[in-house]
Amino acid sequence: MKIAVLGGDGFCGWPTALHLSNADHEVHIIDNLSRRWIDTELGVQSLTPMDSIQERCRIWKQETGRVLHFHLLDLAKEYERLRQWLDAEKPDAIIHFAEQRAAPYSMKSDRHKVYTVNNNVSATHNLLTALVETGIDAHLVHLGTMGVYGYSSVGAPIPEGYLEIEIDTPSGKQAQEILYPTRPGSVYHMTKSLDQILFQFYAQNDGLRITDLHQGIVWGTHTDQTRRHPQLINRFDYDGDYGTVLNRFLIQAAIDYPLTVHGTGGQTRAFIHIQDSVRCIELALSDAPEAGDRVKIFNQMTETHRVRDLAEMIAGMTGARVAYLPNPRKEAPENDLVVKNEQFLSLGLNPTTLQEGLLEEVVEVARKFAHRIDRSRVPALSAWTKTIGARVEKDPESTRIKSVS
Amino acid sequence: MKIAVLGGDGFCGWPTALHLSNADHEVHIIDNLSRRWIDTELGVQSLTPMDSIQERCRIWKQETGRVLHFHLLDLAKEYERLRQWLDAEKPDAIIHFAEQRAAPYSMKSDRHKVYTVNNNVSATHNLLTALVETGIDAHLVHLGTMGVYGYSSVGAPIPEGYLEIEIDTPSGKQAQEILYPTRPGSVYHMTKSLDQILFQFYAQNDGLRITDLHQGIVWGTHTDQTRRHPQLINRFDYDGDYGTVLNRFLIQAAIDYPLTVHGTGGQTRAFIHIQDSVRCIELALSDAPEAGDRVKIFNQMTETHRVRDLAEMIAGMTGARVAYLPNPRKEAPENDLVVKNEQFLSLGLNPTTLQEGLLEEVVEVARKFAHRIDRSRVPALSAWTKTIGARVEKDPESTRIKSVS
Ligand SMILES: NC(=O)c1ccc[n+]([C@@H]2O[C@H](COP(=O)([O-])OP(=O)(O)OC[C@H]3O[C@@H](n4cnc5c(N)ncnc54)[C@H](O)[C@@H]3O)[C@@H](O)[C@H]2O)c1
Ligand SMILES: NC(=O)c1ccc[n+]([C@@H]2O[C@H](COP(=O)([O-])OP(=O)(O)OC[C@H]3O[C@@H](n4cnc5c(N)ncnc54)[C@H](O)[C@@H]3O)[C@@H](O)[C@H]2O)c1
Repeated sequence: MKIAVLGGDGFCGWPTALHLSNADHEVHIIDNLSRRWIDTELGVQSLTPMDSIQERCRIWKQETGRVLHFHLLDLAKEYERLRQWLDAEKPDAIIHFAEQRAAPYSMKSDRHKVYTVNNNVSATHNLLTALVETGIDAHLVHLGTMGVYGYSSVGAPIPEGYLEIEIDTPSGKQAQEILYPTRPGSVYHMTKSLDQILFQFYAQNDGLRITDLHQGIVWGTHTDQTRRHPQLINRFDYDGDYGTVLNRFLIQAAIDYPLTVHGTGGQTRAFIHIQDSVRCIELALSDAPEAGDRVKIFNQMTETHRVRDLAEMIAGMTGARVAYLPNPRKEAPENDLVVKNEQFLSLGLNPTTLQEGLLEEVVEVARKFAHRIDRSRVPALSAWTKTIGARVEKDPESTRIKSVS
Repeated sequence: MKIAVLGGDGFCGWPTALHLSNADHEVHIIDNLSRRWIDTELGVQSLTPMDSIQERCRIWKQETGRVLHFHLLDLAKEYERLRQWLDAEKPDAIIHFAEQRAAPYSMKSDRHKVYTVNNNVSATHNLLTALVETGIDAHLVHLGTMGVYGYSSVGAPIPEGYLEIEIDTPSGKQAQEILYPTRPGSVYHMTKSLDQILFQFYAQNDGLRITDLHQGIVWGTHTDQTRRHPQLINRFDYDGDYGTVLNRFLIQAAIDYPLTVHGTGGQTRAFIHIQDSVRCIELALSDAPEAGDRVKIFNQMTETHRVRDLAEMIAGMTGARVAYLPNPRKEAPENDLVVKNEQFLSLGLNPTTLQEGLLEEVVEVARKFAHRIDRSRVPALSAWTKTIGARVEKDPESTRIKSVS
């Protein structure tokens, strides 16, 4: 197949591009490299030394003989070029990773909120419009998040996208299937909730074929392909904005800093290894909806953990201590999380567990590149509301470590 | 109160601004005048001769001694200026009309789809972010549409925004209130469905106080204030994009053209007179939610009619004939529409009915300005999908009148 990987320079996009290229697909990466610019803005860098996308593509060719095409294009701002590119290349499938993806970054300031909404909504909508306009019947696979449902304390299982309800009509109760109602907890998550509405409309009005993968937190660095050469290594974010909880724990352990848990650490989250994420995308590609079908929604995750349990797991492997801090997010302090993921398991996914894979991350990544860690970038500082922000400003000590276990 | 009327140069915004100024509020109109540019783009003009906004404000001052402040500002593209303006003026209430509001225009081409989404989402989101950033606790009243629910043939009553559902949790069924699920039928309607998600988030995360008025089709031209001087007259759109079904019938009757009904005319729609719309907005202003409340959602309409019944009503008053054409929209051919509007009735709304008010429109507006009608602009041409578009292109005759009753 000819496959376009939008956002193919990113953490998920790069190993996906390699995996698909390795499986004999013709892969085209489209990216505006905005994420590299954000690294510059924040003054942070990937823990792993990451070459330019052009250089990475060159190494891949050198190692495998396979060509990865790279196109510098902003999906949100260059509608005309996007349409022309689609019209010229006519991909069979499109994988859409190209969004601003960090909740803390999306809440940093008004400018960051505006950027995240404009970038994510326009990127997704431009793509959908361009597909309709060019008449290209590509299967569109998008990366969403189960975070759109909010993490309430109710404990309803995270569904695979839909809910059967009953509504009152003049002729009695009538069953109806709806998109499972969302309750996004950050501007970033909100944009994924907006994406869902866009997908529903374009699938219904124009017969676009869309799969939306509601992904858990992706962890792990290496895949079979990124391991082939040091310059093919994947990105590893550990800063307070882009580093997910697990990566931050790994880094803290590597530099002998206590593992900082926000609030009680009772938040439960879903996880998936990057190698499994890449496989899931391939599985989703092989199971495309037909024109006229509703959007296919899968949960892409393999296990759930409470944040404090994760901290204890890593503390156990490394000897680090665990510290508790006030929570800068507006969220339920404790939640259960039951996630349905029957669809991928039935397609044959055989997951890597945290229990098996974490030690490799500690040794092969965190400790190996520990000399590149900037200690000052580890804390997470974005305040979710003005009230929380004011509290932190008045009492900066409140972001410091309170208790260590 | 100090009130900002965003989109105050438009069809609903202008009489609202006058009505509120007349009631002793300090009114600030913010508009980028994009709608006048769209008139230019389409080569159409208001049936009623409409002066510049600056001239209209001058006349209002001359007639009443009251000042209407006008600010040229693009909500979608000038975030910084918007924030500064709010910070400097600190309005008590904001009425947000400033969106691209025609479904056919939103479906004209890819460019129009992209414009409608970018303009409407950014205008609404910039406003919300700026309110949070400046900490201004203004009551925000937004104009939405009950069209977000789609007009299915199921006939479930159009709710006032919310639905009680039951979800399965590990501890049994649990009641939950959700935003009533949407099924928008055009890109324009879709943007209103996106707005709802934005409102829900900012009300929940930041305590913004928001009322969303799901308005029916507004008809009628004059209000008590626009009648005070010929140069205060309101806009009257009759072209295929912006003219709503009722206005187009009135114009067709005035020029002795058959009243063109699309499909069977079995589509039922909700209506409200501009004078009532303006009163409803005042009522909504007096009934603001508290910080922390959910978004208040009202249906703003007073009666429902089938399109073919409307045509027959106007035909009866004017002697015009009724003609049936193929439908360029993708929609249910026949639908019932029961709309709940208890909230406004309980606040004391006493509506003008079509039966009473239509004759004035025929005589005072349509016939009076009949010499300004451009006959070629009356048909509605935007095709909802590529398939419908191709059918029209292959057989342009299909848009011509088929049968006349
Ligand atoms: N990483 C995770 O744990 C995780 C979890 C759930 C969902 N996701 C989703 O998967 C997708 C990829 O995540 P990631 O971790 O690889 O993020 P990333 O930031 O590493 O990669 C995103 C890439 O998209 C590019 N991009 C952004 N906006 C663009 C635009 N307008 N035009 C062109 N390119 C643009 C960026 O430059 C970047 O290379 C995101 O949509 C994210 O929401 C990620
Ligand atoms: N007219 C109806 O029948 C009707 C029915 C239901 C809902 N509504 C809603 O009411 C609102 C007003 O409708 P209308 O009929 O008065 O429309 P209109 O087009 O006459 O007025 C909208 C005004 O907003 C301005 N505007 C648009 N984008 C802007 C931006 N980015 N920055 C600043 N100004 C901007 C336009 O220049 C215009 O003056 C719309 O949101 C519409 O969806 C109207």
